[in-house]
Amino acid sequence: MTTQSPESSMTAPPGSVVLSVDAMGSDAGPSMVVAGLAKFLKADPEVRVLLHGPKAELTPLLARRRLEGQVTLVDASGVVSMHDKPSQVMRRGKGTSMWSALDSVREREAAVCVSCGNTGALMALAMLRLRKVEGVNRPAIAGLWPSRNPSGYNILLDAGADIRADQDDLLTYALMGTSYARNGLGIERPRVGLLNVGVEEHKGRAELKVAHELISRAAPRAEFEFVGFVEGSEMASERVDVIVTDGFTGNVALKTGEGTAQLLGGFMREAFMKTPLSRIASLLAYTSIRRLRQRMDPRRANGGVFLGLNGTVVKSHGSADATAMAAALHLAAKLARSGFADRLAARVASAAALAQDAGEAEAAPDEPATSKADT
Amino acid sequence: MTTQSPESSMTAPPGSVVLSVDAMGSDAGPSMVVAGLAKFLKADPEVRVLLHGPKAELTPLLARRRLEGQVTLVDASGVVSMHDKPSQVMRRGKGTSMWSALDSVREREAAVCVSCGNTGALMALAMLRLRKVEGVNRPAIAGLWPSRNPSGYNILLDAGADIRADQDDLLTYALMGTSYARNGLGIERPRVGLLNVGVEEHKGRAELKVAHELISRAAPRAEFEFVGFVEGSEMASERVDVIVTDGFTGNVALKTGEGTAQLLGGFMREAFMKTPLSRIASLLAYTSIRRLRQRMDPRRANGGVFLGLNGTVVKSHGSADATAMAAALHLAAKLARSGFADRLAARVASAAALAQDAGEAEAAPDEPATSKADT
Repeated sequence: MTTQSPESSMTAPPGSVVLSVDAMGSDAGPSMVVAGLAKFLKADPEVRVLLHGPKAELTPLLARRRLEGQVTLVDASGVVSMHDKPSQVMRRGKGTSMWSALDSVREREAAVCVSCGNTGALMALAMLRLRKVEGVNRPAIAGLWPSRNPSGYNILLDAGADIRADQDDLLTYALMGTSYARNGLGIERPRVGLLNVGVEEHKGRAELKVAHELISRAAPRAEFEFVGFVEGSEMASERVDVIVTDGFTGNVALKTGEGTAQLLGGFMREAFMKTPLSRIASLLAYTSIRRLRQRMDPRRANGGVFLGLNGTVVKSHGSADATAMAAALHLAAKLARSGFADRLAARVASAAALAQDAGEAEAAPDEPATSKADT
Repeated sequence: MTTQSPESSMTAPPGSVVLSVDAMGSDAGPSMVVAGLAKFLKADPEVRVLLHGPKAELTPLLARRRLEGQVTLVDASGVVSMHDKPSQVMRRGKGTSMWSALDSVREREAAVCVSCGNTGALMALAMLRLRKVEGVNRPAIAGLWPSRNPSGYNILLDAGADIRADQDDLLTYALMGTSYARNGLGIERPRVGLLNVGVEEHKGRAELKVAHELISRAAPRAEFEFVGFVEGSEMASERVDVIVTDGFTGNVALKTGEGTAQLLGGFMREAFMKTPLSRIASLLAYTSIRRLRQRMDPRRANGGVFLGLNGTVVKSHGSADATAMAAALHLAAKLARSGFADRLAARVASAAALAQDAGEAEAAPDEPATSKADT
């Protein structure tokens, strides 16, 4: 199963978007998830939601916020905890809210699944229940990074689905990232960069040099612009929309950036609390400081998107509050409306064709032209 | 040659510390290097400096600042440019100021070499002229990262000397980082962390799990504390002093942090320029904002230190101004006074002994116990 007919629920018209939401996994419990749902549904009342979790616990939460009309409960009593290993969850996860939420996407009852549970377990279960799109060897998590671009963000992938990525994976990430930039951020012709330790072509690991060549060759037909190598200092740069890297480097980079922002935010607070004069200043600049805080607010960028599966999964932070949870739900609804999963599958399929063309051009005439993206 | 007698110039008493300085390689030209020297020598007048570069150009610069008494010129007319490839410089670099500056350390005329030239070329030439310390397979660059620790910094290595590092290299980095923390930052019992995508022991690449075991075993005898895996978010953490990783990840992390700090600094400036009220506030908070800027000032942390060579090299930023250049020179003088190069070599030699002990304990009695650190 790679592509869907336009009649499928994945490309449903605005009125009938259905999201599948895992009620459990938030650090603050299911009431936080329901609070986020209420916030989201107030802003986007056309969406219908399948909410997975223990019915007895969730019924009063929904009733209190009068969400019964828009939210349908799906009873699932098991819960995946933050400490469960992915391998355990794959063996014994049936009956959990996470498993149930993914199965609604598998069964095409919902277009996108949203969960704030354990990332490793969610990716393992998603691979098991949704299966990889044909042509994708390693699915990726796409994260958002505050930037000076008009959308306010750059996309980074892989943010940590897999600690490894070879040259073909990196090409696939470029294509999937392009698709996400178009459908998630509305960027018509995304600019893609490959993360490296220098911008010169002789720098970096061997697989990066090959990936540079592969991505460069795919760019014209896949309708993105390849800006070549980018360095860590350009994560927030305006000259790129999508930054491609392996999941180890991507995870370290994202967390380093978050840590740096936290450190500087703390330094700033201390600076403004230091003297009576600076405390007065912080009152005067209250609106400006609030605007600054909003601009850097990680809750606005909540939602790592799993790419390369037959169905879309949005991972919300475990520590997400109602605002952050609502942001993840808005992103999920946007991706559902754009028919994202189908478009991404089509893009990866076209990559296989591209690789095949390249293979044919390079191969001896009597050799079979194998698809690089399938290996 | 691994260790030096205490009589050598490397452990010279305070009065006779000699630094070897490459006058070329600064984006702003040799006048900036001389300005940094003047600033440094005013604060630390006991130091003597060998300054390498074109004599005709440097003589008037020194005369203008009356530095002839403390600075001896060594004529070298060639210059390594930012665009020269390391391989070219290794073949044709003789006669350049960089080569000449390294040779003063090689010949034991100076204890530490300082250069703001091309990093790749400097590392290649340093390996060629100074040679690796016995037991070190891959030298590393140690960078400083602003943190909440009393010293104001955490140490990160490798910051980009080599894009690869295996388990034995990572152990060596832990030992070299410990030695640098002790001699450069004055931390008696450094806490060492290994950078990974999660803190659980089952996470990450295979070589990281082995390195975890090796470093953990070496910690008691090498007198550092191993805190285990740390994540990118902990780069500035107070629970660690030395963060060990491969040069690819380290380079991306450092540059990502720098880029994030720049982005937020820019956002902050914009926030305070936005309204008349916030502009008044920024005037009121002038002292606090200046203090904040100083705390985040990358010039204070100028100086990547090359570790694992027979002699110490401090790499200053090419864009360093006089303040930053002076900071790199102060760091160099501190390392020279502590006899750092000898101490580091002794530490790595003890690691070879440690690995041998471990090898003997594990090996069959009739097998030769080979040193892991030598492979």
